[in-house]
Amino acid sequence: MEINRFNPPVRTLMGPGPSDVPPRILEALSRPTIGHLDPLFVSMMEELKLLLQYAFQADNALTMPVSAPGSSGMETCFVNLVEPGDKVIVCQNGVFGGRMKENVERCGGIPVMVKDDWGRAVDPQKLEDALKAHPDARIVAFVHAETSTGAQSDAKTLVGLAHKHDCLTIVDSVTSLGGTPVKVDVWGIDAIYSGTQKCLSCVPGLSPVSFNERALEKISNRSTKVQSWFMDLNLVMGYWGSGAKRAYHHTAPVNALYALHEALLMLREEGLENAWNRHQKNHLALRAGLEAMGMTFIVPEAERLPQLNAVSIPENVEDAVVRSRLLNEYNLEIGAGLGDLAGKVWRIGLMGHASRAENILLCVGALGAVLSDMGAEIETGKALSAVQKALQD
Amino acid sequence: MEINRFNPPVRTLMGPGPSDVPPRILEALSRPTIGHLDPLFVSMMEELKLLLQYAFQADNALTMPVSAPGSSGMETCFVNLVEPGDKVIVCQNGVFGGRMKENVERCGGIPVMVKDDWGRAVDPQKLEDALKAHPDARIVAFVHAETSTGAQSDAKTLVGLAHKHDCLTIVDSVTSLGGTPVKVDVWGIDAIYSGTQKCLSCVPGLSPVSFNERALEKISNRSTKVQSWFMDLNLVMGYWGSGAKRAYHHTAPVNALYALHEALLMLREEGLENAWNRHQKNHLALRAGLEAMGMTFIVPEAERLPQLNAVSIPENVEDAVVRSRLLNEYNLEIGAGLGDLAGKVWRIGLMGHASRAENILLCVGALGAVLSDMGAEIETGKALSAVQKALQD
Repeated sequence: MEINRFNPPVRTLMGPGPSDVPPRILEALSRPTIGHLDPLFVSMMEELKLLLQYAFQADNALTMPVSAPGSSGMETCFVNLVEPGDKVIVCQNGVFGGRMKENVERCGGIPVMVKDDWGRAVDPQKLEDALKAHPDARIVAFVHAETSTGAQSDAKTLVGLAHKHDCLTIVDSVTSLGGTPVKVDVWGIDAIYSGTQKCLSCVPGLSPVSFNERALEKISNRSTKVQSWFMDLNLVMGYWGSGAKRAYHHTAPVNALYALHEALLMLREEGLENAWNRHQKNHLALRAGLEAMGMTFIVPEAERLPQLNAVSIPENVEDAVVRSRLLNEYNLEIGAGLGDLAGKVWRIGLMGHASRAENILLCVGALGAVLSDMGAEIETGKALSAVQKALQD
Repeated sequence: MEINRFNPPVRTLMGPGPSDVPPRILEALSRPTIGHLDPLFVSMMEELKLLLQYAFQADNALTMPVSAPGSSGMETCFVNLVEPGDKVIVCQNGVFGGRMKENVERCGGIPVMVKDDWGRAVDPQKLEDALKAHPDARIVAFVHAETSTGAQSDAKTLVGLAHKHDCLTIVDSVTSLGGTPVKVDVWGIDAIYSGTQKCLSCVPGLSPVSFNERALEKISNRSTKVQSWFMDLNLVMGYWGSGAKRAYHHTAPVNALYALHEALLMLREEGLENAWNRHQKNHLALRAGLEAMGMTFIVPEAERLPQLNAVSIPENVEDAVVRSRLLNEYNLEIGAGLGDLAGKVWRIGLMGHASRAENILLCVGALGAVLSDMGAEIETGKALSAVQKALQD
């Protein structure tokens, strides 16, 4: 088999992640590799922790990137906090709540599921009922921003309820961090994980996490060893901790960490609030365009994530054909539905660097052009004008 | 705190990894990010599997990179193959055998340790004795190339013994792959893992693995779920498998995989045997220089890894001061001792792209210059001539 140099095309990434990675971050990624125990690298790690604390709005000393994708950040939270026999309330309103359940079970914990419809936020009343019904629950876990549906839950309220019933909280902020408010300290989140390839617009492969003192106390008082050696925070902290001497644990993904450092510098330059506002404003412009084309969102307005727009696929339209044409004819990636929503929705991401006026115009224009070409009656010009108007508001 | 763009210096990486990453691989790393389910990316993944099969000399369909560093490749092997109660014989002759023991225990397995001195190869006789003493053992695990000591074990013989006693084998080839012969099919290795940042000269962060049919059979006949969701090969294969339809499992580290693809292309261009010969030849040149300076290797000649040279630190020489001066004055990184060997040895890597004539000259010259400056009586010129002569042989 002949194998040659791989030349990826330049795509516009408006799926559920990875999002567009700006040239500045790709350049950072390719800076010269140095050793993972090099004093200069260790200084960079210290900066990285501070920058992540800013992104998470968390003062937690244990704030760092796990050296693997978001799903390992999730697993890091569960394997460290859940001990065999622990009862864990898991709120599920999409794919990732189901993955949390899997994690609880594989740690020997007992999951108690609180289910909401896919496309809706987690219902705080249901959580409260479950907390009352299970006074022996130790942990509450939920997804702040469900990447599979585009629904945002009220993290502050859910965490408050959990604490009222003396539970720790594990929060999935993979899709929210950097795109919509995440306030770890103010909301009192005990353990949180995210990903780099969504609203931080960094390359995929790392999972920022943060743990507060209450979470650390539970971890250091465990009666059993953490089942994962790679994810055991007691060991990882020997490398990422603030001690003068760093102990080797694993070889850090040096270059990916350069890229994350640069991505977080960009976030700080823009300012968190400005980033949140940009995501919201661009969401409204995309919404105006999509609605002008007759599309409907699956999430009620008050519960929508600005950075992940899930819309119903119009009737008589072949999902895969449209996505494939967008990719092949316009180098535009939008996301397919996941799990129960496969074939029923498109997920259009406006995350990080992808949340830009030109991307919205491309997406609405390309969708309009392709759907028209396939016989749909769509007034693409009107939709683009709606985008234009919304951007000027 | 003021935080600016991180500008890493250009180091020469002659520690135990990461090794020097050639510009071509850094450039590949920074190619435009595309989606992890993009058809073009999926084609690249297929090529990557073939290239890894070549590197491992394995026909195994399940040959792929785990999306995290080498220690997670190790854990992937153990969590998938070891079930609670399984007896696992672990041969330990350095740090990484100890890590294997930790993995066995955390999987609920029962480790049986076969210990050899650090700096020596695993003794096949001791393994055979243990196999006879523990006829209920299910798995034999050992490190082919001990990065902590520079000792190479006879993988072919050890695997043969394990099979004679009906055990599966898990082999650590983190430091050997691409630098010294690793022949998965010919030797019959059942499960193997490696790293990207050693003799493949790629950036750190990925762990190539390969599993044969016997290993897969054990995995698919497990009576318990794999305790790690992230590393469960039954799930990972939905994404990396050869089926026409790829199921999302986690978001692959897209750009790191570009880099690995390029690194493996370079290995194929050079040819495996040529790469092995280059590592051996350069090892002899480094050895000539170090021995001319009066340094001694801790591993007997017949058991030495050419790519990882562990030498005793001369008496009355301060370990940290020397390494620090090499780094600050010559941008040269060599490795410290690990575990029981901390403070006693230096580990000088000649891995992948770092295994070059100019690096050997720099290392011998810089060590000679710094040690002389610190008062040692060293004939650096003679040492450099010895290097020169060995390179011409």
